[in-house]
Amino acid sequence: MSSLDANGGAAFLAEIEQQPDALRRLLEHDAEFKRVAREAQARSATLVRMVGHGSSDNAASYGIYAFGLLPRWTALRDSITLTVYYDTGVDFRGSTVLGLSQSGRTPDVVEYVRRARRAGAFTVALTNDVSSELATEAEAVLPLAAGPERAVAATKTYTNTLAALVLLAGHAAGEGARVLEALREVATQLEALLPSLERDVASIARAFAYVGRMFVIGRGLEYATAREVALKLLETCRTAAEPLTATDLAHGPVAALDSLFPVWAIASHDAALPAVVEASARVREAGATIVASGNAAAAIDGADYVLPLPEPPLPVLAPLLSVVPGQLFASALARAKGLDPDAPRGLSKVTLAR
Amino acid sequence: MSSLDANGGAAFLAEIEQQPDALRRLLEHDAEFKRVAREAQARSATLVRMVGHGSSDNAASYGIYAFGLLPRWTALRDSITLTVYYDTGVDFRGSTVLGLSQSGRTPDVVEYVRRARRAGAFTVALTNDVSSELATEAEAVLPLAAGPERAVAATKTYTNTLAALVLLAGHAAGEGARVLEALREVATQLEALLPSLERDVASIARAFAYVGRMFVIGRGLEYATAREVALKLLETCRTAAEPLTATDLAHGPVAALDSLFPVWAIASHDAALPAVVEASARVREAGATIVASGNAAAAIDGADYVLPLPEPPLPVLAPLLSVVPGQLFASALARAKGLDPDAPRGLSKVTLAR
Repeated sequence: MSSLDANGGAAFLAEIEQQPDALRRLLEHDAEFKRVAREAQARSATLVRMVGHGSSDNAASYGIYAFGLLPRWTALRDSITLTVYYDTGVDFRGSTVLGLSQSGRTPDVVEYVRRARRAGAFTVALTNDVSSELATEAEAVLPLAAGPERAVAATKTYTNTLAALVLLAGHAAGEGARVLEALREVATQLEALLPSLERDVASIARAFAYVGRMFVIGRGLEYATAREVALKLLETCRTAAEPLTATDLAHGPVAALDSLFPVWAIASHDAALPAVVEASARVREAGATIVASGNAAAAIDGADYVLPLPEPPLPVLAPLLSVVPGQLFASALARAKGLDPDAPRGLSKVTLAR
Repeated sequence: MSSLDANGGAAFLAEIEQQPDALRRLLEHDAEFKRVAREAQARSATLVRMVGHGSSDNAASYGIYAFGLLPRWTALRDSITLTVYYDTGVDFRGSTVLGLSQSGRTPDVVEYVRRARRAGAFTVALTNDVSSELATEAEAVLPLAAGPERAVAATKTYTNTLAALVLLAGHAAGEGARVLEALREVATQLEALLPSLERDVASIARAFAYVGRMFVIGRGLEYATAREVALKLLETCRTAAEPLTATDLAHGPVAALDSLFPVWAIASHDAALPAVVEASARVREAGATIVASGNAAAAIDGADYVLPLPEPPLPVLAPLLSVVPGQLFASALARAKGLDPDAPRGLSKVTLAR
């Protein structure tokens, strides 16, 4: 088990704080995103197949909504197994493939992209390393530009992947300039938010030091946030946190809840909010503690802890802000538990596992 | 909390045991499946969008592989939220929509199908109630034919949904007769298997009475099984069981493992097996207990408990057998914990939650 030394968790926290700068760095590459969007349009490659693992796959959950809401293209988290292991011979014509990998070295993502390109897809690598194997295999490369990420658990790469997906989707919809400007404002909002949020989260996290399991719920755009917050808690705090859509919670797992099983609800102002509010009412009936975060956190009646956030200039950008309380919570909870979030036991930064 | 009376769990166990008969009942409707497959082909509606919650959504994870491996069509678990809550105006031409609902009354699945049909999809309801609202809204209805299901946690509806998806996929590939025959053999295998498996599982389940959290891993075809086994444990045993692909486990959550955090590995003979074997080795290094089930369970080195299964006549059918040890385990573990799996606290059979 990693033990906490004087600097334990310093990289993880620093990288959370670097997110506004990392986001601005990505936006400098706007012209490249515009070019790739035009190429996808020119080829009528409007079925978007996203592949990645861990945080990259969580970001892909957001991509479904970014492409669905902006150019109204269908995007999916594609099965890597069908193409790489089962060698199915999927018809990739009319598809844009987005290979998502921080390092650009995830073996089965690289192999998927190689095969998809041969089979007629327009292949694009989104990676921090534009000279990586993934970048070489793909026809086009979009830099995530998050800068060096030292903590094993991704933070700024996750938010920059969200930004990359929505910027690409914005250009595909002919609204790139509007999305770019709104992302700039989100960077400013993030910067203003971080100091006070860090203080508020730390005082809540201490109360969770003995929690062994949690649910994190969200719906629609914020399902990606629920997945990513749950993954941070698992990776850095050894808390068994499971992400669920608000509706799926009510379809079964609500039966597992009791007063020792808290639920974190991600609540943003959009048309899916009533589903999150209703599911939270079921949680409260079961006697479980509720943490509510997001720009509609105040809508969750009877929440035990509330972490409100500002509204972004475009509703589709809410997840770039919504994930931050969860990242800070994981950082604070790991410290409260004496764990080192920079180097969780058993993990390395580049996962070469199949 | 539901307390266990003399008959507590009797319906849940009986319905697990009814699965061979339920499966045979479904196969009597073969001609209807063939007709729907032909209609999808005739309309070139070869992008398959599946929608459902809970066990139905888990079955959809299997549908991705059934359609990918047989007719080589791309199938996805579509976002209900984009269409129902965000009212995006998705282009549904060229899509077959499969609405999956045991009761046929899940509100947002009904609404999704209504809108998809208006927008040009070929809509098909798969439900136990062929006179339900879902059946009325869709153009075509395929009966799940599982018969009355009284236990809140679905079992025979889940396996019949798998069978329905693979039979439809088989007909779409022009291999319906071969899949039908193989499904008949699976019913026979299931029947032969149940008595001894029930005994073997019961003796293992007792050792898990104090387990608060688990991971259930699988990959490819068996990811659906991992999801469904985890859901049964959550619903009926109040065990925080999280499903993960074998590869995603290695990308982060492995950090949460210790000797009190067991992992259930679903292992079947197919090209994705090496990923499950490698992930299990990581689990063993972390000191966690391993339960291995499936027709390749013996390939998981150092498993503490092994539940082997027979090979189905077609590899794509393995998940119909693989889920059964998990269902029986949930039944036995709920009894060991004094919980009533027929009526988990806070759940009702028809979930009308949004």
